[in-house]
Amino acid sequence: MDDLKPSPDMSPEEFRKWGYKFVDWIADYLAHPERYPVLSQVEPGSIRRQLPPNPPEKPEPMADMLRDVEQIIVPGITHWNHPAFFAYFAVTGSGPGILGELLSAAFNVNGMLWRTSPAFTELEEHVLDWLRQMLGLPDGFKGIVYDTASTSTFHAFAAAREFAGEGASQLRAYTSNQAHSSVEKAAMAIGLGRSGIVKIGVDEEFRMDPVALEAAIKKDRDEGRRPFCVSATIGTTSTTSIDPVPRIADICEKYKLWLHVDAAYAGAAAILPEMRWILDGCERADSFVMNPHKWLFTPVDFSAFYCRRPHVLKQAFSLTPEYLQTTDPGNVTNYMDYGMQLGRRFRSLKFWMVVRYFGVDGLRERIREHIRLGKLFASWVEADSKFEIVAPVPFSTVCFRSKSDDSANQKLMDRVNASGKIFISHTRLNNRLVLRFTVGNLRSTEEHVRMAWDLIRHEAS
Amino acid sequence: MDDLKPSPDMSPEEFRKWGYKFVDWIADYLAHPERYPVLSQVEPGSIRRQLPPNPPEKPEPMADMLRDVEQIIVPGITHWNHPAFFAYFAVTGSGPGILGELLSAAFNVNGMLWRTSPAFTELEEHVLDWLRQMLGLPDGFKGIVYDTASTSTFHAFAAAREFAGEGASQLRAYTSNQAHSSVEKAAMAIGLGRSGIVKIGVDEEFRMDPVALEAAIKKDRDEGRRPFCVSATIGTTSTTSIDPVPRIADICEKYKLWLHVDAAYAGAAAILPEMRWILDGCERADSFVMNPHKWLFTPVDFSAFYCRRPHVLKQAFSLTPEYLQTTDPGNVTNYMDYGMQLGRRFRSLKFWMVVRYFGVDGLRERIREHIRLGKLFASWVEADSKFEIVAPVPFSTVCFRSKSDDSANQKLMDRVNASGKIFISHTRLNNRLVLRFTVGNLRSTEEHVRMAWDLIRHEAS
Repeated sequence: MDDLKPSPDMSPEEFRKWGYKFVDWIADYLAHPERYPVLSQVEPGSIRRQLPPNPPEKPEPMADMLRDVEQIIVPGITHWNHPAFFAYFAVTGSGPGILGELLSAAFNVNGMLWRTSPAFTELEEHVLDWLRQMLGLPDGFKGIVYDTASTSTFHAFAAAREFAGEGASQLRAYTSNQAHSSVEKAAMAIGLGRSGIVKIGVDEEFRMDPVALEAAIKKDRDEGRRPFCVSATIGTTSTTSIDPVPRIADICEKYKLWLHVDAAYAGAAAILPEMRWILDGCERADSFVMNPHKWLFTPVDFSAFYCRRPHVLKQAFSLTPEYLQTTDPGNVTNYMDYGMQLGRRFRSLKFWMVVRYFGVDGLRERIREHIRLGKLFASWVEADSKFEIVAPVPFSTVCFRSKSDDSANQKLMDRVNASGKIFISHTRLNNRLVLRFTVGNLRSTEEHVRMAWDLIRHEAS
Repeated sequence: MDDLKPSPDMSPEEFRKWGYKFVDWIADYLAHPERYPVLSQVEPGSIRRQLPPNPPEKPEPMADMLRDVEQIIVPGITHWNHPAFFAYFAVTGSGPGILGELLSAAFNVNGMLWRTSPAFTELEEHVLDWLRQMLGLPDGFKGIVYDTASTSTFHAFAAAREFAGEGASQLRAYTSNQAHSSVEKAAMAIGLGRSGIVKIGVDEEFRMDPVALEAAIKKDRDEGRRPFCVSATIGTTSTTSIDPVPRIADICEKYKLWLHVDAAYAGAAAILPEMRWILDGCERADSFVMNPHKWLFTPVDFSAFYCRRPHVLKQAFSLTPEYLQTTDPGNVTNYMDYGMQLGRRFRSLKFWMVVRYFGVDGLRERIREHIRLGKLFASWVEADSKFEIVAPVPFSTVCFRSKSDDSANQKLMDRVNASGKIFISHTRLNNRLVLRFTVGNLRSTEEHVRMAWDLIRHEAS
């Protein structure tokens, strides 16, 4: 930077030098995430207090940045890479996925049109077709990558509204009271308001009740409202329960409603032959979302959205201004036509590398192991008379509680999380506070799960 | 991968080895992007034809992936890193930005809540405050990072709707007929329908006509509709024209409308003291968007959104399910409350590194140079009697045409783009095809601009 004629970007030599240093730093970080507390222990405001209030006028050395990452940023990280991260849904940005992101940042292409990088568009189409095969979905399902399941579900709702026809008013969508908050947000986002979404009750295993669903639809029709969409969930966020999609699909067909399936977390398990049944009925869905950045070892963000009626989605979002018109052949996909966002990152590279590095068999083995560990943890809880399991465990997520009151459970969770050794989360079921334990990080072993259970038992006593 | 007990993720040693190789490959690629045609020359379908139709069952070597990137992917890339990329808005994912993305993929945190990584939330707040200072916006503007300007404008519209009050119907938004398509998409997305957005005419310099705006608002009010939002643009996509924000702000205040300002591309220029005037009036905006991934050398995606009424935005999108409730102090920001997306990538790291690496002065110098090159190109066009400039050139984007018919201009553009030496784009103004030339890549020099002009003149004759 101090030459007479400064290099406009970091020079290739400097990039190589600092690239190596960043790779070294990351390799070391990923080798020992256990040296840090899982849940960051810093006080609110303590990160900002260490940063200069004004941006620097003059260039600063890369070495200072790496130092600040280590000294200021890392203590403020809640380590999603830690093998004892058992909260929310545990995820992994695996090695090949990280390298894929690196490459994608270097190409820095915007895949709005086929011509703005044909390889971007075609690789996205291709790897989403691979994933479709892995999940056993029909080949009419067109795939598109969005950032998050929230965005995917939003697009599902927008397409459903388009399907209902312009001018349709008093629209009503339905989902279970266990559905993810993003479903309600999608309804708010497209302008239905909070009253536009009806939450259907669940059975004792937290699955949407199809009889209640049909009754709600009938009531709304009788009262002049317009049912237009049902969002079913495979693997709800609290308990990973599985809505009865075949029966819900019957109802959607009967009343001509758009069926969206949210399998953001649990869909990954369907790549196991013995778990494929969880997607029964999904071939009749109009749209379907599954997030490889949750349980398929792909760094955030990567949400795979499939649509059986891509022309409806396109109709809801296609709008090509003159400056984006092309003379390209009509048989190419211009992904900007299928979504709200014009700018699109080259996300398919990382997923391509993850699938190739592990192989589908390798992915299956790892998910199978996580499910084994989840059920193992559940068996220990079950065997302990001071604790109880409060929901079925179809995947790697366990809902449990100590047989005491909410306050004791809250304190138990706070204590184990404050230890920095493990991180678990909670939910509420049947008006009781419930603890959630989930396995999804590639570094988690039986030893970590055992340590977690020992710690929980110890802190409970 | 062939040990008896396979490593669940790529080992740190393997990550280091392949990290180095990827860094080497990228350093070499970034040193010589000119060896490739700017605009990819492949045929539709040719990328997919080279990829196996089914996902691999077994692991594949990383070496195969790097080979495929080189042999299959790179020929299908339109090189946004090429110094002669003069189409759309030229961008740069600078070295420090790429390394920031690498680090962010490695941390792989989801910044939905403060506690899911305090450093994520606080660094985002902090660097957006730096950028706010760089742009000279008031300190009441709260910043949030979204993926793209489309998403930012969507959130602006959703907040504006919330501001108008629940139950408000027959809502109308206003923007100029030169506004970006994302403004219309935002209106479609929140459910206004295509008739919900009114396109206001522009003056001879393509700036929104405030008299026509006020007349349209009055007419809609008289006819029982509900004006609620105006989206003004600083740097429109076709010509980079600058709407008269102070006069539009007067109108918004008079009629109590939400004022959103889209400065996605041109906002970057406001960090130059001599260009700060372009943001005059923006201190009165309710929301404002500017994209560092466009002209501030940050890899896609990074859209900086500012809101003067963050509580309204929060009201439109806040919805905290039990599994995301925390006992964290009330003075922390949980960014999930301010947007549709629950999942959030750690985007602030790359921007932090870009600002520190170049320094604000360094960023200014580079933008100043791009504006110089844009105006230089314009001066050459102006001096050639066979060409004409068709719009003012306030930034680095030049709208011009050969003084012949549309078909000749289309052919001229197709020929220069097919050469692979440069890439320019087009738009339509006053019902004529117009060529667009824009400078925004850090590698572009006067030599490249001269080469482009020579090529265009040569192909035109």
